[in-house]
Amino acid sequence: MATYSCRSREELRMEAKKLMERYENLRHENLKLDMSRGKPSKLQLDLVSDMLTVLTDPAECIIDGEDSRNYGNLAGLQCAREYWADVLGCKPSETFVGGNASLHLMHSLISWGYTHGLKDSPKPWCKEEKIKFLCPSPGYDRHFRITESFGFELITVPMTPWGPDMDIVEELVQDPSVKGIWCVPKYSNPQGYTYSDQTVDRFANLKPAAPDFVIMWDNAYCVHEFEGEFEPFRDIISLCAQAGRPNMVYEFASTSKITFPGAGISVMASSEENIAYMQKLISAQTISYDKINQLRHVKYLKDREHTCQLMKRHAEIMAPKFHLVLKILRKQLTNKGIAHWHHPNGGYFVCVAAMPGTAKRTLELCAKAGVKLTEAGATFPYGVDPLDSFIRIAPSLPPIEELEKAMHVFCTSLRLAALEKYLGLTLI
Amino acid sequence: MATYSCRSREELRMEAKKLMERYENLRHENLKLDMSRGKPSKLQLDLVSDMLTVLTDPAECIIDGEDSRNYGNLAGLQCAREYWADVLGCKPSETFVGGNASLHLMHSLISWGYTHGLKDSPKPWCKEEKIKFLCPSPGYDRHFRITESFGFELITVPMTPWGPDMDIVEELVQDPSVKGIWCVPKYSNPQGYTYSDQTVDRFANLKPAAPDFVIMWDNAYCVHEFEGEFEPFRDIISLCAQAGRPNMVYEFASTSKITFPGAGISVMASSEENIAYMQKLISAQTISYDKINQLRHVKYLKDREHTCQLMKRHAEIMAPKFHLVLKILRKQLTNKGIAHWHHPNGGYFVCVAAMPGTAKRTLELCAKAGVKLTEAGATFPYGVDPLDSFIRIAPSLPPIEELEKAMHVFCTSLRLAALEKYLGLTLI
Repeated sequence: MATYSCRSREELRMEAKKLMERYENLRHENLKLDMSRGKPSKLQLDLVSDMLTVLTDPAECIIDGEDSRNYGNLAGLQCAREYWADVLGCKPSETFVGGNASLHLMHSLISWGYTHGLKDSPKPWCKEEKIKFLCPSPGYDRHFRITESFGFELITVPMTPWGPDMDIVEELVQDPSVKGIWCVPKYSNPQGYTYSDQTVDRFANLKPAAPDFVIMWDNAYCVHEFEGEFEPFRDIISLCAQAGRPNMVYEFASTSKITFPGAGISVMASSEENIAYMQKLISAQTISYDKINQLRHVKYLKDREHTCQLMKRHAEIMAPKFHLVLKILRKQLTNKGIAHWHHPNGGYFVCVAAMPGTAKRTLELCAKAGVKLTEAGATFPYGVDPLDSFIRIAPSLPPIEELEKAMHVFCTSLRLAALEKYLGLTLI
Repeated sequence: MATYSCRSREELRMEAKKLMERYENLRHENLKLDMSRGKPSKLQLDLVSDMLTVLTDPAECIIDGEDSRNYGNLAGLQCAREYWADVLGCKPSETFVGGNASLHLMHSLISWGYTHGLKDSPKPWCKEEKIKFLCPSPGYDRHFRITESFGFELITVPMTPWGPDMDIVEELVQDPSVKGIWCVPKYSNPQGYTYSDQTVDRFANLKPAAPDFVIMWDNAYCVHEFEGEFEPFRDIISLCAQAGRPNMVYEFASTSKITFPGAGISVMASSEENIAYMQKLISAQTISYDKINQLRHVKYLKDREHTCQLMKRHAEIMAPKFHLVLKILRKQLTNKGIAHWHHPNGGYFVCVAAMPGTAKRTLELCAKAGVKLTEAGATFPYGVDPLDSFIRIAPSLPPIEELEKAMHVFCTSLRLAALEKYLGLTLI
């Protein structure tokens, strides 16, 4: 079949009629499906049940002469720092192990920048007249929200399949009020792109005007392949050090999508100098994070290789869902000229770029038929997608039979929204 | 024997000679003892080993239809909110359950006040010209440090056996730049005083000039009697509400000294309006705290009554240590006119008020003999005790035989420091 743009008005009407019927049928199923957030499914949680029994002997709580049950050791158990260093490819001394949410560490870092300044800040950011932050988009809404909540100006940087458009980034960082950039370098949220070696190099070699410019390197999906083998990824920390700006980057990761989303451990990694500086600040905030849970994780996950074996089992659950999503997208949306998408090998999302001006309407139609997706625009600063095009699909939570239904609703809705645009009519 | 002040110079010299000898003997034992922080002992940690096996069945992780393993539920599991409401005597809807450190919640609150303002703030505190904070002293060094780290001016308020001197508090809060006060209302850190009903009433009825004045009510030792039965304590939240200022107080507590110091759960309690406001702010920071650990705690501690039974077992370990400390203090320091102290029924500390001008020297002598105590001055704003008098003793960590040694070193050192003062000599 021809693309919608090449069809006659009559052909479009016939297509609309068929889809309206299909939509009404789906609507009458009274669905209540949620594909809005990257939540692991119950099957995935059940995969790691041994986490609950991996540490039951109090004698085992004493490790390297330290009692993990008691107060102390702000930066985390040595074995936990070694674990993260192995996963991320940095040094244990470059890590700080946090609580159950890497988002919390990211928020703390921005908050400390605001209240006290980062290591190389001339003054706290709250004393600056204006702070700007770069947001490669589509991106992760919770990142953008942190910087928005502190009143920073968010600047959209276009994403490419190789990472943020570095020509634009390199130009924007000449502005000294630009203090940082949000990145998800591997299987980016939501498009699933992995930054190319060249992009990573250009990041490490950035020469921003602000001495305290910070790359927020959220390596959320560092071992989260659902297709193929573990893809090694370069260590941004040593690359920045080699380029002469060791304090420019903070990397983050967590086990939220490895063990339990609500009860994992997190890490912040950076130059030893930065970690020492942050530790001093964080020492006013807490005595330590939960070291028993750190120990549980080290005992259970062991090292990167062993973690990757577990990730294979997650992949066995995740891959069929992604395959299904991509199959239905292909079948229903290909060659119509109304949407395109990337086929990721890891991460938690598929991002559909619908015909400009149809994303919101698509989600509206989905909602009416009982299918909830991430709000249109959420992947852009201030929640506004200027093209009204990008839609994030999170296939992880629903069981596969529900996912199939939800995807039919989604594709039908997207096609109807496009037809409405072409026909200049409201169909539903 | 007469007080030092009534003895002749010759008598003081003889006393000094005897104590110098004793001190040298103690020093030759090459001790290495730590009474600096309120750390529970290994025996206490071993008391709660069943915490490690209380939740091993994944099916039990699903409670009230919610999977505690997954993301979500920012304010905490309903059962955890109910637990804390029972312990503190407030409503579940007035609680917010946090991670392993109540200090973290306190820090967050002050930080949010600074960056965004509290519920009733005219503007964020970082936009105010000057912020002052009241610090009843001696008090908890980590409290003072939080407010110091944000550059607030710390104002010392004298402590009395019934709580902070409320005449002074009521006067100081007339200043609109005074934004809050730190309190440990039950078994205050470090003196072990419990605020009287009248003091609590006067707190609830404060009429501060600042609309966003905040009482930081750190009920750290809410169930921590080591002597006698659980002492009921009035609910400050409902008292403030009755007095017409429901948003004036935030209460904090944790299980750090009930289960595992490094791996407990914490709570912040306040008016529903405050909790709703804070939840909105915290939602930018994290998706939820560790709900599996919340569930572990609820299953293990059950309710206040059951928690108090566990606290009795802690008391069996703690009481002999406090008795020993108080016995040695009594035996060695009574009737010399060089120190006084309170006998607390709960909490984690004994606070000795030494003769003015001798606290630092006492700790110096202790350190030389291998005994570490909380730094002199630490219990005052900026770490400076204007009288150089107060010394905090934390008897919980060392085994009892070590504690006895440490207390002998301490009393000998304190007496020597007093003698040096009277004789105008350096003896050691």
